[in-house]
Order: sequence, then structure tokens, then C-alpha cells
Amino acid sequence: MSTLFQPFATQLDFETGKLNPKGKVIIRHLSDMKGMYLDEGEFENQLKKNPLIYEVYNVVVPETMPHIQHCVTILHPGKVGKEYFMTKGHYHEVLDRAEIYFCLKGKGELLMQTKDGEFSSLEMVPGTVAYVAPEWAHRTVNTGEEPFVFFAAYPGDAGHDYGGIETEGFVKALVEQNDKPTYIENPRYIQAVK
Amino acid sequence: MSTLFQPFATQLDFETGKLNPKGKVIIRHLSDMKGMYLDEGEFENQLKKNPLIYEVYNVVVPETMPHIQHCVTILHPGKVGKEYFMTKGHYHEVLDRAEIYFCLKGKGELLMQTKDGEFSSLEMVPGTVAYVAPEWAHRTVNTGEEPFVFFAAYPGDAGHDYGGIETEGFVKALVEQNDKPTYIENPRYIQAVK
Repeated sequence: MSTLFQPFATQLDFETGKLNPKGKVIIRHLSDMKGMYLDEGEFENQLKKNPLIYEVYNVVVPETMPHIQHCVTILHPGKVGKEYFMTKGHYHEVLDRAEIYFCLKGKGELLMQTKDGEFSSLEMVPGTVAYVAPEWAHRTVNTGEEPFVFFAAYPGDAGHDYGGIETEGFVKALVEQNDKPTYIENPRYIQAVK
Repeated sequence: MSTLFQPFATQLDFETGKLNPKGKVIIRHLSDMKGMYLDEGEFENQLKKNPLIYEVYNVVVPETMPHIQHCVTILHPGKVGKEYFMTKGHYHEVLDRAEIYFCLKGKGELLMQTKDGEFSSLEMVPGTVAYVAPEWAHRTVNTGEEPFVFFAAYPGDAGHDYGGIETEGFVKALVEQNDKPTYIENPRYIQAVK
């Protein structure tokens, strides 16, 4: 056998969205998202139960350019006050790296923004293949009643920059108004210092 | 609006495997695969009807590194003699670029080989996420009775080298023996000159 990296397979369960083997698992509860939801009183209130917000199952490959990182995210349904459960969101550490989000189950919205404060969003339903273009931060929001499951792929060397988005916040927030997902300006948003 | 590449979405139909919008379409009939099947008599015989072997729907993004190429392939069921319908197969033009194959429907085998003549294969059923490691040529074979549909993602700058595989052929061929898919040595295989 050569010294080359060897091919392998992972099995995704379309019912649960989980991978076998599980790979590198990231689990985020509400307590991992301090300062990210608009309604701080409701945030504190829900912390007692500290609900599971999302799970990410990452297939493990080297974080270098010849490779393709890939993972599946299960974003659970729920709200903090009027604001839907969401992921933290991030830029790529190597900023100009794209990503694909392929919705397998449930429904949601993909929120994206640039360091210049440009904002864009895409609706995701099963079969939607969303293209997060290079340089766009990305966050997903579950606007449905069941888990929102999507598969993602991105260049091996992209990395994650969560800190930028923690400082800035997202330009817009997604809340329920009149029983419908509605975008509102995020009063806490601060444009990135370039 | 900035001059940045903008996000967008494509819709995949899980029933047919087709994309909307279709993107860049590649259609391969039997006549596009001269010299690739073992049974030349049967190849010539089937050329009269010239069956559709596979279709690839490519989402169009720039072929540069910040980007992620992605496409869906519909590989139809059938055989040329005892040998199952298959794709041409290719190395990446930038050899050390990985690829993900994510099976959505049907079943098949993924054949891979290196320039050194090392061979590997993976079974693919719905939910299988196969990792084509950097430097491995890859070909898919439909071993089922219905279309074998899979989604693929790979680095934007990878490119395709079909010529190498046309000259070498694959180390092994997949044929039906006693009603089962069986690997046999390919008598026409010639190891690559490095």
C-alpha cells in the first residue's frame, strides 16, 4: 500500500441526519451562545433547561488544501422568545473560501453577510443546494417544526473564524411575527473593522 | 451591491436527480466511450441504439480555488455484455485534489486507482458519502436496476484529466458473474508512465 491518503466511506442516515462513524462531533447548547439572541430575559429563562440547539458531525480529513472538509448539521426546532434557534455562524479563517449547504430535511433560512455589511439570505428546503460564496459569513436558522438537516462541504484549508461574528453580530435577525419568519434589523450589529 | 461573488441556490429534485437551473450539462452516450468496455462486439452491437449512459448537471461557479465545484450525476442502469454501465472516470488535472461522492439514489460501486496502479473500491448506497482522496482517479459503476444518482463536490481548481485514464484504462473491471457484481482484472490496463 502506498503512503497516499486512502479513500473511505461514511454512512449518513437520512432519517436522523447522523453519520456512521460519527466523526468529530460538535454539540451546542443554549449556554454556548451567550449574547447571540435578542431577548436576554428569555435567554436567561431558558438556560435553566439549557436546550440542545445544534449538532455537527464532521468527517475527519486533514485541514489542508488537497482535501474537502464535509459535515452534517442537525439544527433543532425552537425559539428564544420570538427568535428562532440558529447556529453561531462564522466567516472562514481563510476568508475567500466558499461552502456548499445541501438541505436534506426540514426547512430553514441561510443568512450571509460580508465584512462590508452586505446581507443576503436564501430559503432552504429539502433539495436546496445553497452556495455560500467566498468571503460571506454564514448562519443557519430553523424556521420549521422538525430538525433542519443539511450537508456541507468546503475547501480543506478554510478553517473557522467564530470570533469575528461574535463581535459583529449578524446584520439581521429572524423572528416570528404574525406566525411567519420575518427579518428585522439587529440593533446590536456592529460593522467589522477592516 | 459589492463586487463580491454573490450567494445563490440551486434546487435538486430527489426523485429525478436533476438540478434547477440545470447548469452546465454533460450527456454521455455509449458512442462517447469507445474503447472503454471489454466486449467490443457487444459495444458495436449496442451502438445502433446508442444508449444514454450518464448525465452530469454542474452548478456553474468559477474554476478557481476560492470556489467549490458541485454537480449531480445520473448514471443509468444497463450492461455492455456482462459489464455494467459506468462513467469514463478521470484524475483531477491538479492531481492532489480530493472529491466527495454522496449517493442519493440507486446503488453502485466507486472504483479508484493511483498512478502507481494501487486500486480501491467502495460500495455506494443511498446515504453513502465516499471520500475520493487526493491523487486517486475515480469512476462510478451502476450495479443496480434503477438510476444511480450521486452528488459530488470538489475544490474549484481541480479540473479534469480524462486523457490519462483513456490511455491507462482501469486496473479492474466490474462484470456480472452468477448474477453478482464481480471484479476482474482488466487485460487492457497499462500502468501510467510517471
